[in-house]
Amino acid sequence: MTPQAINTVGLLFHPHKPVSKELADEIGLWFQSHGVTTWTASSWDEAAVTEKMAGTDLAVTLGGDGSMLRGARMVYPNEALLVGVNLGRVGFLTECSPSTWQDTLDRILRLDYWVENRMMIRAETVRGNQVLASHTALNDVVISRGTLARAIQLETWVDDGFLTRYFADGLIVSTATGSTAYSLAVGGPILPPELRNILIIPIAPHLTMDRAVVLADGAKVTTTVDSYHGAILTVDGQFEFELQTGDSVIVRACHKDIRFARVRPRGYFYRDLLDRLVPADSPGNTSP
Amino acid sequence: MTPQAINTVGLLFHPHKPVSKELADEIGLWFQSHGVTTWTASSWDEAAVTEKMAGTDLAVTLGGDGSMLRGARMVYPNEALLVGVNLGRVGFLTECSPSTWQDTLDRILRLDYWVENRMMIRAETVRGNQVLASHTALNDVVISRGTLARAIQLETWVDDGFLTRYFADGLIVSTATGSTAYSLAVGGPILPPELRNILIIPIAPHLTMDRAVVLADGAKVTTTVDSYHGAILTVDGQFEFELQTGDSVIVRACHKDIRFARVRPRGYFYRDLLDRLVPADSPGNTSP
Amino acid sequence: MTPQAINTVGLLFHPHKPVSKELADEIGLWFQSHGVTTWTASSWDEAAVTEKMAGTDLAVTLGGDGSMLRGARMVYPNEALLVGVNLGRVGFLTECSPSTWQDTLDRILRLDYWVENRMMIRAETVRGNQVLASHTALNDVVISRGTLARAIQLETWVDDGFLTRYFADGLIVSTATGSTAYSLAVGGPILPPELRNILIIPIAPHLTMDRAVVLADGAKVTTTVDSYHGAILTVDGQFEFELQTGDSVIVRACHKDIRFARVRPRGYFYRDLLDRLVPADSPGNTSP
Amino acid sequence: MTPQAINTVGLLFHPHKPVSKELADEIGLWFQSHGVTTWTASSWDEAAVTEKMAGTDLAVTLGGDGSMLRGARMVYPNEALLVGVNLGRVGFLTECSPSTWQDTLDRILRLDYWVENRMMIRAETVRGNQVLASHTALNDVVISRGTLARAIQLETWVDDGFLTRYFADGLIVSTATGSTAYSLAVGGPILPPELRNILIIPIAPHLTMDRAVVLADGAKVTTTVDSYHGAILTVDGQFEFELQTGDSVIVRACHKDIRFARVRPRGYFYRDLLDRLVPADSPGNTSP
Repeated sequence: MTPQAINTVGLLFHPHKPVSKELADEIGLWFQSHGVTTWTASSWDEAAVTEKMAGTDLAVTLGGDGSMLRGARMVYPNEALLVGVNLGRVGFLTECSPSTWQDTLDRILRLDYWVENRMMIRAETVRGNQVLASHTALNDVVISRGTLARAIQLETWVDDGFLTRYFADGLIVSTATGSTAYSLAVGGPILPPELRNILIIPIAPHLTMDRAVVLADGAKVTTTVDSYHGAILTVDGQFEFELQTGDSVIVRACHKDIRFARVRPRGYFYRDLLDRLVPADSPGNTSP
Repeated sequence: MTPQAINTVGLLFHPHKPVSKELADEIGLWFQSHGVTTWTASSWDEAAVTEKMAGTDLAVTLGGDGSMLRGARMVYPNEALLVGVNLGRVGFLTECSPSTWQDTLDRILRLDYWVENRMMIRAETVRGNQVLASHTALNDVVISRGTLARAIQLETWVDDGFLTRYFADGLIVSTATGSTAYSLAVGGPILPPELRNILIIPIAPHLTMDRAVVLADGAKVTTTVDSYHGAILTVDGQFEFELQTGDSVIVRACHKDIRFARVRPRGYFYRDLLDRLVPADSPGNTSP
Repeated sequence: MTPQAINTVGLLFHPHKPVSKELADEIGLWFQSHGVTTWTASSWDEAAVTEKMAGTDLAVTLGGDGSMLRGARMVYPNEALLVGVNLGRVGFLTECSPSTWQDTLDRILRLDYWVENRMMIRAETVRGNQVLASHTALNDVVISRGTLARAIQLETWVDDGFLTRYFADGLIVSTATGSTAYSLAVGGPILPPELRNILIIPIAPHLTMDRAVVLADGAKVTTTVDSYHGAILTVDGQFEFELQTGDSVIVRACHKDIRFARVRPRGYFYRDLLDRLVPADSPGNTSP
Repeated sequence: MTPQAINTVGLLFHPHKPVSKELADEIGLWFQSHGVTTWTASSWDEAAVTEKMAGTDLAVTLGGDGSMLRGARMVYPNEALLVGVNLGRVGFLTECSPSTWQDTLDRILRLDYWVENRMMIRAETVRGNQVLASHTALNDVVISRGTLARAIQLETWVDDGFLTRYFADGLIVSTATGSTAYSLAVGGPILPPELRNILIIPIAPHLTMDRAVVLADGAKVTTTVDSYHGAILTVDGQFEFELQTGDSVIVRACHKDIRFARVRPRGYFYRDLLDRLVPADSPGNTSP
């Protein structure tokens, strides 16, 4: 896909980090000095961001991976590009740092970037015959027990075939992007971000199916909650929605991808991975 | 240890299961017809049970493993025996069923039983210089995140040496008995119930130490919570206690064991284990 | 894909199981009585089978999953169908049993079947500038230490990007079909057979990358052996090839699939999986 | 235990590393200049070392953990102390390096050390009614398949109770010391070296029991091989012994421990562990 010209840029700052707003202003001035129109909004203010996105070519988040997750959900419907300046600790999704943003954004303006499409997923919550809610996620959708420390039962179907009944703390339905997030912490496999598979993996399964299952991108995963105390639906680790026993959550791939603007070499994913998974003095970290 | 004569028996029924109270009454009459003094109480009424335990030789729970866990915490200080009639689904701790209790209890009355000692653990919660609370567990003590789906940081020490800082959903500190409970669901090793080791294992560790650590029975495990949103201490999956950032939880073996009266063969543990862990048609389930 | 008419059938028997040859003869007569031309050969006699495959519409193996693996490698170049009568213990790949073959084969003759395509992989072994050998697998290609109980180092690349240096007993490169074979035993995820991903997972990694990595079907996996004592390349657990230090093994998807004729419902895979992974009395095995 | 005076020292060098022999000579001269009698031998020459050990107070290995394993097996019957100068890459067992040996050995001479007892295990191989062989290990005893890439069946008993039938690449029976060796690579728990438990864990179990089992130090583990192609018994990753189908291997704790002389702080084990298991920039590596 040919890089597209950048005329309008949205800057999404973290409302609780003053340094984020300051950097947004600084970057805004820099873009304006290059003839680009900009707007600024809190990445937590979904209404404002959504309204302003029309006609926007590029959104820049100033925060950590959490800001990228918020940004992705708001930006993907418009097919705009997204890029992240990392103010957080670990950045699997961001592209540059407060000291390197100028170089990165300059390359994007000069169309010296590539586009990394990442599949997103949508979860519909059904109660009775009604769709109660619909949520979009870049990383994962998690159905888990509430505070009460009791495993819940989750009956899960793939397309229209019964998969299993989990007795577990919860179930993660993840994208490839999410394979290095929560899923990784419960032993899941790693999927490079270009994969369009859907991954399901239980959290603390008690004498029930304990393996990750990798599905095709067209798969539909339906999970019905069986728990007196209900359950919680968590979207990208950021939003929560209360589920009752009998509720079903249906997860499918979204029709549109989020499109990251990248300037790093295309093989960056495995390099990052190695740095995070393997101790520095391990023989596994010796690249040629 | 020589079996001890049974003169007084306490019957602990499940307050929400009518069948449990009925069976308690039936078993009470049976004991009385054998010249044994009995009393009956709800297994959820800790004050009543604790008061009545003085002078009691044997406590019988009528419920599942949950009732055994409650019973153990109330019974162990008096060094009385404990035995469980299983009304639940899976019974790793109970000894007999509603159809076999008469044979089991008859053998116990005739002193044809053996005593299985199981180590328990105690968790002290310290805030500032004060011990806020002290809880006893037969299975495990779990320090975990609350509803908010964010990993918490837990700095953990063994005796007075630093072990690691977990970044995880939580940390399980378990007895051998608890090794087939929650710990098993997060990949922990199995310890036969006579072992006096303490087991620690994280829940969903994110790029931090992910292995179970097995410690000596004299070990002291200290965990300090570092989480803006606090954490939850859960005792045997039954009681919860709210922790704040900075709180420390110190876990050690209890001085006294809970003493189960057993009539099954001493090797029952591995047989049960096999039935629960391995599919019936697996070659692993073919005993000679 | 429309089912294709069956005019010529090859029967592949197991040379060390007399019952297999007898059943081949019986099935051969049955096919002939339905106007179908048949031929019979040992599934171990690759030259004979390959020669006879031209013009064959369907190959039937009489053995276990091992026979299906052999069959697949010989049958896929001709795009014929393959179906297995299970004489072995566990059959993830076979379709029917010695007591049900007539019904299954009758449905296939009447074109009442569906075709399940399964991706295969090819491993090229390169020494210096020469391709020493080329092997095809339906399940997996494994590069592992020889008898000497020493971990080996395996430098692995995905496409042209460095992945990691494993220090391990070996590395499994698997298809979706192989995800329920060796890969499963080292903790790998499950991929339903229609997936075209390539899966890589180490065997007993020692302080190096321990996660499964799932790749796109176009991926090229290159592994270079670094071990004084060499290594062994094993194909579908059946053939072995000795590797020297410095040898590279390049694994890619095959251009053609093996095509299984199926009469079972399309959702059979998850049903089988459940029966094999979860103890019968587990709540996980309760289908609705 | 009170440190004991050091009058006679044996220096065990690695026969294939010239630097090891040179360092042995240098250390020998240093000891002699302090009035200590020394002898030197190849750590691979078991007969020579065993003969010279009588009356020796301390053995010093000059190599990696492999040399410590050899040393331990030769030194423990005499209850002498053992200390290792690390010439290898990773040293879980060694105490000092080529640049720090003088300080370490000086402290040992001045009795400024502590003794770390580590339990060892002995494996007896029984064929028919005969004990064919007996091997001692500090890390582990492994019963595994030979070159042929076929899982083997291993029927395993704990004391006199049936545990399970493994269908796997092999079974590791490990000490606490061995918990950071091969066992760690197949997902085993970590046991600090002072523990006297015996650990059993399968390698690549196929649909059979996959959990580590931790046993008391008095446990007896009996494993019977069921494999047409036999199996291999490997001792500490160094010696191999061919097993036939029907052979049993009986593993028990040794009566005597190996005694390491240590000058490092007693908590060194967890510190080392952290460095090896957790990436340097992980929050898990942030000590207070």
